Amino acid sequence: MTAQSMRDHLQSLPETDPELDRLVTEIIGRVADKWTMLLIEVLTEKGTCRFGELGRECVGISQKMLTQTLRAMERDGLVTRKIYPVVPPKVEYALTEMGLGLSEAFCGVWLWAERNRAAIEQARSDYAAREEA
Amino acid sequence: MTAQSMRDHLQSLPETDPELDRLVTEIIGRVADKWTMLLIEVLTEKGTCRFGELGRECVGISQKMLTQTLRAMERDGLVTRKIYPVVPPKVEYALTEMGLGLSEAFCGVWLWAERNRAAIEQARSDYAAREEA
Repeated sequence: MTAQSMRDHLQSLPETDPELDRLVTEIIGRVADKWTMLLIEVLTEKGTCRFGELGRECVGISQKMLTQTLRAMERDGLVTRKIYPVVPPKVEYALTEMGLGLSEAFCGVWLWAERNRAAIEQARSDYAAREEA
Repeated sequence: MTAQSMRDHLQSLPETDPELDRLVTEIIGRVADKWTMLLIEVLTEKGTCRFGELGRECVGISQKMLTQTLRAMERDGLVTRKIYPVVPPKVEYALTEMGLGLSEAFCGVWLWAERNRAAIEQARSDYAAREEA
């Protein structure tokens, strides 16, 4: 999709439905989150994962933030949580169909980040040079 | 791109370059942010915007957060800031080529949010019902 066609698409959305606007914005606010994106990437790559495995793969996430993010993702229907009645308890997470759909949608953002890595670093050093001037 | 092809793509990335991994993750962490996504949407829809206009369109953003987010976007090369030497000063923001590219990449996420709105609301009420049970 080009910027123009996105502009057309956005302009074609019913402006008269502020409730739809509010909901879509709220959903974007929820999923446009660093940890959600990283967890979706790990679950896409690895498939079913245990809690500890997700913690190890998401470098820098705290136990508390991992629990919170997974709970919000489960609540939104992005992941399933399966508890095995063993000792110690075994809990496995996997993406739902809807979670996989979001993973595909995010894929464009990952590709963009990879493609524009050098340009972003260049922009940052240009910005730093301007600030110093 | 399907989930399978994304998985293939992710698996084909050079695992031996942790620096690339780190950078892409850091970039994603920066751009996967609610306000960045909303500002990109407004700038895609409206083109060039003044500071106050962006504040009005991004409902709920504080002046401070707007300033911070725009500065980070300028630093990353996503927006340009043009200052007109008039009284009172006029400052205009617009997406760069790279910002437009990110806008296109995010478009998939907006479409996903619109398409899955009802399913997410359903998931939330199912989750609430399970929690109460």
